[in-house]
Amino acid sequence: MNIGFVGLGIMGAPMAGHLMAGGHQIITCIHKTSAPKTLIESGLKVVENAKEVAKNSEIIIVMVPDTPQVQEVLFGQDGIAEGLDNGKLVIDMSSISPIETKEFANAIKGMGCGYLDAPVSGGELGAKAASLTIMVGGSEEDFSRALPIFELMGSNITLVGENGVGQTTKVANQIVVALTIEAVGEALVFASKAGADPSKVRQALMGGLAQSRILEVHGERMIKRTFEPGFRIELHQKDLNLALQGAKSLGVSLPNTATTQELFNSCSANGDSELDHSGLVTALERMSNSKVN
Amino acid sequence: MNIGFVGLGIMGAPMAGHLMAGGHQIITCIHKTSAPKTLIESGLKVVENAKEVAKNSEIIIVMVPDTPQVQEVLFGQDGIAEGLDNGKLVIDMSSISPIETKEFANAIKGMGCGYLDAPVSGGELGAKAASLTIMVGGSEEDFSRALPIFELMGSNITLVGENGVGQTTKVANQIVVALTIEAVGEALVFASKAGADPSKVRQALMGGLAQSRILEVHGERMIKRTFEPGFRIELHQKDLNLALQGAKSLGVSLPNTATTQELFNSCSANGDSELDHSGLVTALERMSNSKVN
Repeated sequence: MNIGFVGLGIMGAPMAGHLMAGGHQIITCIHKTSAPKTLIESGLKVVENAKEVAKNSEIIIVMVPDTPQVQEVLFGQDGIAEGLDNGKLVIDMSSISPIETKEFANAIKGMGCGYLDAPVSGGELGAKAASLTIMVGGSEEDFSRALPIFELMGSNITLVGENGVGQTTKVANQIVVALTIEAVGEALVFASKAGADPSKVRQALMGGLAQSRILEVHGERMIKRTFEPGFRIELHQKDLNLALQGAKSLGVSLPNTATTQELFNSCSANGDSELDHSGLVTALERMSNSKVN
Repeated sequence: MNIGFVGLGIMGAPMAGHLMAGGHQIITCIHKTSAPKTLIESGLKVVENAKEVAKNSEIIIVMVPDTPQVQEVLFGQDGIAEGLDNGKLVIDMSSISPIETKEFANAIKGMGCGYLDAPVSGGELGAKAASLTIMVGGSEEDFSRALPIFELMGSNITLVGENGVGQTTKVANQIVVALTIEAVGEALVFASKAGADPSKVRQALMGGLAQSRILEVHGERMIKRTFEPGFRIELHQKDLNLALQGAKSLGVSLPNTATTQELFNSCSANGDSELDHSGLVTALERMSNSKVN
């Protein structure tokens, strides 16, 4: 199948690679960065702009950083919308605003096309291993059509609800991940300051109710001080911003999400916005004049 | 072996039952509640007071609600300390202050006896199933002596460090558990208000980085509105109080623990202190004028 793919960055490049390995022709355009050489050698086709990508593809995937970039790629000059015909399917795999996603979906569907919001979790490692969690919003029909493609990129694929709900689920995911990192950070700073060995504390906690993937993976990063991303603090700030903006417009109160965003802001203020999000613990350490060790 | 056991409440009774099933003679005294009939029928011996318990036992286990009760049982009139001889071992399995635990341990060790702090996690279900997580502070020697007894009551048993560190680990555990419940609560309230089905959101999140025992167990309770304890909010308030008091005296800042305690306080203010701790979500729901459904 001819599949358009706009946004071959850290995530998009390996995802498109899996689709090519699955026998699909991938068509892209020069977006922010040039197309990866290995993909060109494998037969990636590069066209002029997003409009041409849409013209030449049956399904068009978008994987860009944030809401304004999705809007531009879809509806800007020479954008995807200009190249769409009746019956094509647009899949936005970026992590963006659930509220604006509904507007984008309505506009695309108004042109006789399908639309899925399908943000992912799992990061660069998950993209490379084709083990991404994919949270999908849209119709059953569009989901069934896209499923064989999703299965080339991910392992835990759920149709959660209608358009926008995929993005809502991703925001919920990022709230849980950030606040669990914060929880593990508070516990390890407390335990260290009280004279306990944090690696033994982590081990003891792993067997009980405190067990989580975050305690396992990010807890270890905090103890071993391995803060290379992984998933950068500045990206998690973007996601919590979506949560807090969404909360304001929906009328929801998220007290610990707000505090946790301020802790990420403290990391930024100290020049650490490119650390892995487990580096959140350094903000707690600053507050307590103490280190996990 | 003759084992003393002071505090045969919701947790203590099934724990003592497992020790009796393991062939030990259990000796207790009337503390707050009368001794369970089934244990008396199985051969439980009831003596006058804690001093007599200590006189008649080689190892003495304490399982009472909080720091003042441990202090009274150990050092009050006719308390355990009055009945100790050289070479006996005291094991406090209550969840109490790490700081005062060090003082209690020093006093008992000054009498030529051993002391372990060995708080548990896993609640009534874990006590009944003999699957408790046991977090132990003390010497290797005392730990080795107690291990066969711990193995009759728990399945995940860790010597974390010296006296006090068992209690510190339990506090760290309760911080992670409370803050993860709060995180799942914020995510589910947000997702529900945004129009998503919270049970599908929970399912989608279970496969990725947001995975935790709390999302699995307490997330389901929030969705199904099953708030019978489980572990009561008023007990978790006690544990977070230990965290916040400890933080103050150690010089540690725990921002989200503080907020989460205020949310538990809001549950209390609304007459819900006897709900399971997953009922924390009701405080978030009140703040957002919205329900997980």
